[in-house]
Amino acid sequence: MTLRMLLAAAAAFALPLPALAQVAPMDPAALRDAALHDDIAWDIAEGLTTEVGQRLAATEAEARGREWAVAKLKALGFQNVRIETFRMPLWVRGEEKAEIVSPFPQKLVIAALGNSGSTGPRGVEAEIAYFPTLADLEAAPESAVKGKIVFISHAMTATQDGSSYGPFGQARRKGPAVAASKGAVAVLIRSIGTDYHRNSHTGGTNWSKGMTPIAAAALPLPDAEQLERVIKRGQPVRMRLLITPQFKGEAESGNVIAEVPGSDPSAGIVLIGGHLDSWDQGTGAIDDASGLAITTAAAKRIMDAGQPRRTIRVVWFGAEEPGGFGGEAYAKAHAGERHATASESDFGADRIWKFDVNLPESAKAVTDRLTTALAPLGIAKGRAVAGDGTDVGPMMKLGVAAIDLAQDGTHYFDLHHTPDDTLDKIDPVQLRQNVAAWTAMLAVVANAPEEIGPVTPRPGL
Amino acid sequence: MTLRMLLAAAAAFALPLPALAQVAPMDPAALRDAALHDDIAWDIAEGLTTEVGQRLAATEAEARGREWAVAKLKALGFQNVRIETFRMPLWVRGEEKAEIVSPFPQKLVIAALGNSGSTGPRGVEAEIAYFPTLADLEAAPESAVKGKIVFISHAMTATQDGSSYGPFGQARRKGPAVAASKGAVAVLIRSIGTDYHRNSHTGGTNWSKGMTPIAAAALPLPDAEQLERVIKRGQPVRMRLLITPQFKGEAESGNVIAEVPGSDPSAGIVLIGGHLDSWDQGTGAIDDASGLAITTAAAKRIMDAGQPRRTIRVVWFGAEEPGGFGGEAYAKAHAGERHATASESDFGADRIWKFDVNLPESAKAVTDRLTTALAPLGIAKGRAVAGDGTDVGPMMKLGVAAIDLAQDGTHYFDLHHTPDDTLDKIDPVQLRQNVAAWTAMLAVVANAPEEIGPVTPRPGL
Repeated sequence: MTLRMLLAAAAAFALPLPALAQVAPMDPAALRDAALHDDIAWDIAEGLTTEVGQRLAATEAEARGREWAVAKLKALGFQNVRIETFRMPLWVRGEEKAEIVSPFPQKLVIAALGNSGSTGPRGVEAEIAYFPTLADLEAAPESAVKGKIVFISHAMTATQDGSSYGPFGQARRKGPAVAASKGAVAVLIRSIGTDYHRNSHTGGTNWSKGMTPIAAAALPLPDAEQLERVIKRGQPVRMRLLITPQFKGEAESGNVIAEVPGSDPSAGIVLIGGHLDSWDQGTGAIDDASGLAITTAAAKRIMDAGQPRRTIRVVWFGAEEPGGFGGEAYAKAHAGERHATASESDFGADRIWKFDVNLPESAKAVTDRLTTALAPLGIAKGRAVAGDGTDVGPMMKLGVAAIDLAQDGTHYFDLHHTPDDTLDKIDPVQLRQNVAAWTAMLAVVANAPEEIGPVTPRPGL
Repeated sequence: MTLRMLLAAAAAFALPLPALAQVAPMDPAALRDAALHDDIAWDIAEGLTTEVGQRLAATEAEARGREWAVAKLKALGFQNVRIETFRMPLWVRGEEKAEIVSPFPQKLVIAALGNSGSTGPRGVEAEIAYFPTLADLEAAPESAVKGKIVFISHAMTATQDGSSYGPFGQARRKGPAVAASKGAVAVLIRSIGTDYHRNSHTGGTNWSKGMTPIAAAALPLPDAEQLERVIKRGQPVRMRLLITPQFKGEAESGNVIAEVPGSDPSAGIVLIGGHLDSWDQGTGAIDDASGLAITTAAAKRIMDAGQPRRTIRVVWFGAEEPGGFGGEAYAKAHAGERHATASESDFGADRIWKFDVNLPESAKAVTDRLTTALAPLGIAKGRAVAGDGTDVGPMMKLGVAAIDLAQDGTHYFDLHHTPDDTLDKIDPVQLRQNVAAWTAMLAVVANAPEEIGPVTPRPGL
C-alpha cells in the first residue's frame, strides 16, 4: 500500500489525517536506512570547506561562513533562519619560527596555541627547561623555570572514546599558565595529538586573570621527540623562538539558527548542531564542518518526511574553539525557551559506535526505542551519563535532557586542530552512518509522545 | 670450536691461515641472521638525523654532515676515510606563500621545487590555467598559458616498485620548463606523492639551457584537490604567490668515502652507499640517512667478521638531490679504478622484497648464491636488469656490474621529499631486514671467487 493509497484510505474513513500522515513517513527504521544513501551531509561539508575554507572565530572568514550558512539553510528549506551575533575577543596567528641554536642547530616546526602571547618581533632565545609531564612542571621550583623556554611533554595515546584528551590536554590548557607563573619566557608543548606528521596541533590555552600571556606553541610529535633526543644527549639546549600572534580587541561572531517547526510547541525544542568556526590552519572539515553537515542533513531528512511533533532547532555555533563563546551566547539568549533535549556532533566524522542518554524517568521508553533504532547501525547503549558538548553544555547545565551519539575517536587526534583537518579526511561512508544515526534519533525523539522534562545534569558538566 | 681454537689448529697444521680464518665467519647465512639483530644502522640514522638534521646540498649543514660522517666512519673502524670535495651551484629556499584571491579567498600550503625561480619579494598575482596532466599543458597553445599561473595535476598512485614515479614525476621535472616556454608567470604542481597530509613534496625541476627559471612550487594533495574543486565551480580563479628561493652561485659539496680493504685488490671494488644530502624540509631520514645506515652497517658487519676478498667501498654521496652531483664527481675521480659491482640504497627503509642483477655470465654462480642467501628474508630474484641509482649510475654506465636490492616503495611516496621525512618513519625491524640483506649480499659478492668483469649497462641508464 503506497502512501497515496494510505492517505486516500484515511480520508475515506475520516481518520485524523495529520496523525496518520506522520506515522508512516516517520518510521525511524525506514528513515535511518534511507539516510545511508545521504548526499546532503557531504554537500554541506564539501561546500563549506571549499567555498569558505578556514573559519577562525570572529574573523571575516567566520562571517563569510555565516553568510554561506544562511544561504545554504534557506536553500534547504529550513524555517526561521537567522544569525544571532555576539562580541568576543579576537586572537589571530602571526609569524612562528623555532630553531635549536645549540648544540645541534636545526629548525623545528611549531604553531602557536590559541590565546598565545607574543615573543615580540625580535623573538626570544633561551635555554630549554624540559618537563616530561605537566606534573613535573608543577612540582618544579621557580629557579628551574625562570628565564627559560619551558618544554612540556606527555604520553597521550589514542582512545576510542577520546577520554585521554581530558587529562593529557591539560599540558596545553594549563601548562603555559603554570610556566608563566614561574617566570618562563615562553612555552613549547608536545602537540596534544597522536599522529607523526609535521603538523602542530593548536588549540586554546588559558591564562589566569591578570596574567600577561607569554608565547606558547605546540611542536608536532616528530619535532617534540627530536627535541627530546637532543636534550637527552646531555648538553644544555638553547632555542630561538619567534611567535607573534595578536589580540585584536573585541570583534563580532555569531550563531546561525534554523528550524523545522514542530506541531506541538509546548513539547519543547530538540536542539542539535555543531560549530561553524574552526582553527585557522586546516579547513575545519572534521572539526566541525562534518558535525554541521551530519546534524543539518538529519534535520532536513526529517523535515522532508513530514512535520515532527517537536521543533528541531539546528544551531551552527560560532566561536567554539577559543572558548565556547557561541554556546554561552545561545544559552544566555534562549534559556527561557523550553528545550526537550540537546545533542551536538563535534568529534569528527568517523562512525558512531555507542550512544548515551540523560533522560528523565518519564522518557524511559524513548531510550528503548533509540536502542532498537540504532542497533542495526552497530550502535549500542553505552554506560555513561550523556552531557557532551562545549556548545550545548550550557543548556545541559540548566537541566536540559541529553542524548550523545558518540563517534569513534581512535583517529580523531591524528587530525584535531591541525592543518590536516581537510575534506579528504571525511569518509563518505562513515559520514552517512552518522546521518543515519542522527536521523533515527530525531525521528524517535522529536516525535516521542512522552514528556521529556528536565534532568539532573551530569556531574562535573 | 671457537675461532681462537680454529686459529690455533690452523697454526698447528700449518694450513694457509688467512683462507681458513675467512671461511667460517664469512658464511652468508650466519652473517645474515646475526644482522637481524643489528643496532648499528639505527645508531647511524638516529645520530645523523638528530645531531645534524636537514642536510641541503652545498650548505653548511651538509658540510656538518660530512664532518659527522668522517668521525662516525672512523669510530666504526673503517679505513681510508676521507672527503672528496667538488663544486656545484647552491640553491636555497626562501619565503613561500600562496592564496586564492577569488572567488573563494583562502591560503594554500606550498613548497618551492628545487631550482625554482623567484616571484620576487612582491610576489605575483594572476589567473590560474589548469591542466589535468602534463600532456594537456604540452598540447595547449601559448595563448592559454601566457601571463598565467599554470597548475598541473596528475593521478599518480602508489606502486611497490616505485615505477609510477618516473612517468608522473615528469610534471615536476619538466612541467615548469614547459610552462615557462609558453610564457607562464609561475607554476604550481600537484605534489608528486601519495599521501594526504599538508606537506608539499619538493624535488628538483630542470630548466632548458638559457631559460630564465620561473617560480615553481608543489601543493600537497589536499591543497591540489581543494584548488581543483574551486576551479570546477566554473569561475575564473586568481591566486597570489610569493616564492623567493635564491641561486647563490658555486659552493662546495663532497663525497665521504670509507673502505674495508680486501685481500685481493685485483678483484675489483664492491661499491655501495647512499646519499648524505637531503632536502631541507625534513631530516632526510628515509631519504637517505637510512641508505647510509643500511650499507654502512652491512660493511661494518663484514669487516668485523674478517677480511673480505674484495675491497668494500662505502660512499656517502653529496648533493644527490639537486642533480646527482656527487655520483658524477665520484665517477670522474674513480673511473680508472677497477670496480666489480655497484649498488646503492636510496628508496627508504622499508623491507627489501626482490633483488635484480646485471652480472656477467662468468658470475652466474654468484646470482645463485645470492638467491639462496636472500630467500629466507622473503627476497626473490626479480625480472629486471639491475642498474638503479642516481649515485652509482654513472659507474654503471661505464660497465660496472650491478646488484639492486629493491625496497618496498608502497609507502615511500607518502614521505618522499616532505617535512615528514623524519626518524620516526623508520621501522627498526624493517631496517634490520635491510641490513641483513645487504650483509648477505656483501658476504657473497665481496668473497666470490669468480671474476666479476664489466657488463653491458641496462638500456636507458
